[in-house]
Amino acid sequence: MKISVQELHKSVEKIFLSIGCSEFDSGIIADVLISAEARGIPSHGVMRIKDYLGLWSKGRLNPTPSIEVVYETPSTLVIDGDLGPGIVIAHFAMNKTIEKAGSAYTAWCSVRNSNHFGIAGYYSLMAVKHNMTGISMTNANPLVSPTFSIDRMLGTNPLAVAIPAGRFDPFVADFATTPIARGKLELLEKMNKKVAELLVQDKTGKTSTNPSILKDGGSILPLGGDFQHGSHKGFCMSAIVDIFSAVFSGANFGPFVPPQVAYLEPKNESPGKGLGHFFGAMRIDAFQPTEQFLEYMDLWIATFKKASTIEGFENIIIPGEPERDNELLASINGLEIQDVIIDELTASLSSFSISSPF
Amino acid sequence: MKISVQELHKSVEKIFLSIGCSEFDSGIIADVLISAEARGIPSHGVMRIKDYLGLWSKGRLNPTPSIEVVYETPSTLVIDGDLGPGIVIAHFAMNKTIEKAGSAYTAWCSVRNSNHFGIAGYYSLMAVKHNMTGISMTNANPLVSPTFSIDRMLGTNPLAVAIPAGRFDPFVADFATTPIARGKLELLEKMNKKVAELLVQDKTGKTSTNPSILKDGGSILPLGGDFQHGSHKGFCMSAIVDIFSAVFSGANFGPFVPPQVAYLEPKNESPGKGLGHFFGAMRIDAFQPTEQFLEYMDLWIATFKKASTIEGFENIIIPGEPERDNELLASINGLEIQDVIIDELTASLSSFSISSPF
Repeated sequence: MKISVQELHKSVEKIFLSIGCSEFDSGIIADVLISAEARGIPSHGVMRIKDYLGLWSKGRLNPTPSIEVVYETPSTLVIDGDLGPGIVIAHFAMNKTIEKAGSAYTAWCSVRNSNHFGIAGYYSLMAVKHNMTGISMTNANPLVSPTFSIDRMLGTNPLAVAIPAGRFDPFVADFATTPIARGKLELLEKMNKKVAELLVQDKTGKTSTNPSILKDGGSILPLGGDFQHGSHKGFCMSAIVDIFSAVFSGANFGPFVPPQVAYLEPKNESPGKGLGHFFGAMRIDAFQPTEQFLEYMDLWIATFKKASTIEGFENIIIPGEPERDNELLASINGLEIQDVIIDELTASLSSFSISSPF
Repeated sequence: MKISVQELHKSVEKIFLSIGCSEFDSGIIADVLISAEARGIPSHGVMRIKDYLGLWSKGRLNPTPSIEVVYETPSTLVIDGDLGPGIVIAHFAMNKTIEKAGSAYTAWCSVRNSNHFGIAGYYSLMAVKHNMTGISMTNANPLVSPTFSIDRMLGTNPLAVAIPAGRFDPFVADFATTPIARGKLELLEKMNKKVAELLVQDKTGKTSTNPSILKDGGSILPLGGDFQHGSHKGFCMSAIVDIFSAVFSGANFGPFVPPQVAYLEPKNESPGKGLGHFFGAMRIDAFQPTEQFLEYMDLWIATFKKASTIEGFENIIIPGEPERDNELLASINGLEIQDVIIDELTASLSSFSISSPF
């Protein structure tokens, strides 16, 4: 279905109001999910709502959490999210981080007892509005095997870094620390296509081209694919995200991260609380006078924009550009949500006796 | 030749004393270079000395720099290295960062006007001794093309993160943000071997198996290799290291980073000063009481140590383990420096009329 950003916002808000979220929280959730749609990342948009509702129905997502700062120093915070919606917790945490960076120049926040927080880039961009570099990351339920392992020990653990620029739009890197995400595998499966080599492995550790391999004990490989191609570096990246998000905060780490869908039961063993995130904000005038910084960052972007391309490619991609282009188009043309997504959501709403706003 | 760690330390120290470095600085340089040898990273060890001497002979490395803090806030620093030896500057900068983190709980330092700093892991480990997580990164002369580009826009831009543990040794991830380093290509070239696909490309942007391809206008690919395998994520990582190291400090970025060998002339265009580094230190009690943190980090390491391996592999590698094992062996058995390295160095010393300590 075709729908305007404003209309979809209202509809999503209504759904979360129905399960008891506050007006403010429902607005935030709608904003982040619709931002994912607009930026061209539908895997983190409206199609996630049924999963959030599922978790809520099983008591694994608290619609009225008491989000609390449980530890604090002049430049750091630890926040307990009381198992609320990950988006609401992350938004709260990033705001606190920005506030603290206001006085400390840089600030860092580790979060426990949270749930799936949507797109990482949203929170790093919150800092940019305050002339700060924003950093956000989260751990996620385990699907990824370290180099030389067959066990699922880590999630796709995304990392986002947004850096302000002057006349250019900000630099926004927002990426999973794996070469492929689960959503893309599901898509290939539906289209009856194969996966390229060095993205997933079977249960014995052999690279596989079967997009359904996760259902058969397989796992996603770290960025790099195999040792020869540097997969140990991808493993390091995912591990760092996991440790900053969970060991720093007391959330569950690695293999213990609770699944973010209701049809998978929570783990038996749970050394920590919920899942974890990590946020950072650094004022750009923590390093240089603002104008000077913005000018130099503009020069960085301008220089990279001029890089010669491989024949057949018009330009290299400055991180953040494609998502911004999508967002602009969405604000003009509205959003196209696949009917199957709306159908799934409507069915899910009806199963919980929530009237569908669609 | 076989040599003890202590003997080699004295010899290296002597060399840097000969070019006018202070006793303290010469000791630091010897320490970092020998640490690279002991940890099994000879590409950053004694074989680098001839390059440092070459830069010095051309006035591109200042043996008696006035390293200065040029910008400061409660949690950040910018340091100008006065074009001194990168190792001396990095050691100074990390110490300042650790000192500042002592009061601010976390601290960050961007450095300009520096040179090659050796192994990144050394500096991140300095923080661990103070019960802090240590972060270090540097940009490097351009050899790497962004996804879809044929230009050399970035260096191999390494990143190191060291995290304290309790009964276990610290977690130390220390890796180039590319799948292969230049040194390894040179090694394959000497052995008349091919490079695996998706590590380097030719000047038109086609993946190549020729280890000499850099001499023919080729470039190293970002971690991931190609777009399908997530090379845009590797590009993001390298870009973030470049921006934090150079845009934050006012050093040269990306294609403008000066070569770290004397036989390559400095760039014509130089928007910044020297090359750049970035350091961070976060007290572990910035997030949790120390004992609690160390215990939980131990659980993280113990859990990953138990991961099932692919047949034929005994265990997965916890980042930092292989380097530590090497270091232990070196302290017992001494170091084995290849004769060709000593010969090259002796020739270089003789060309500068410095008497060889070997």
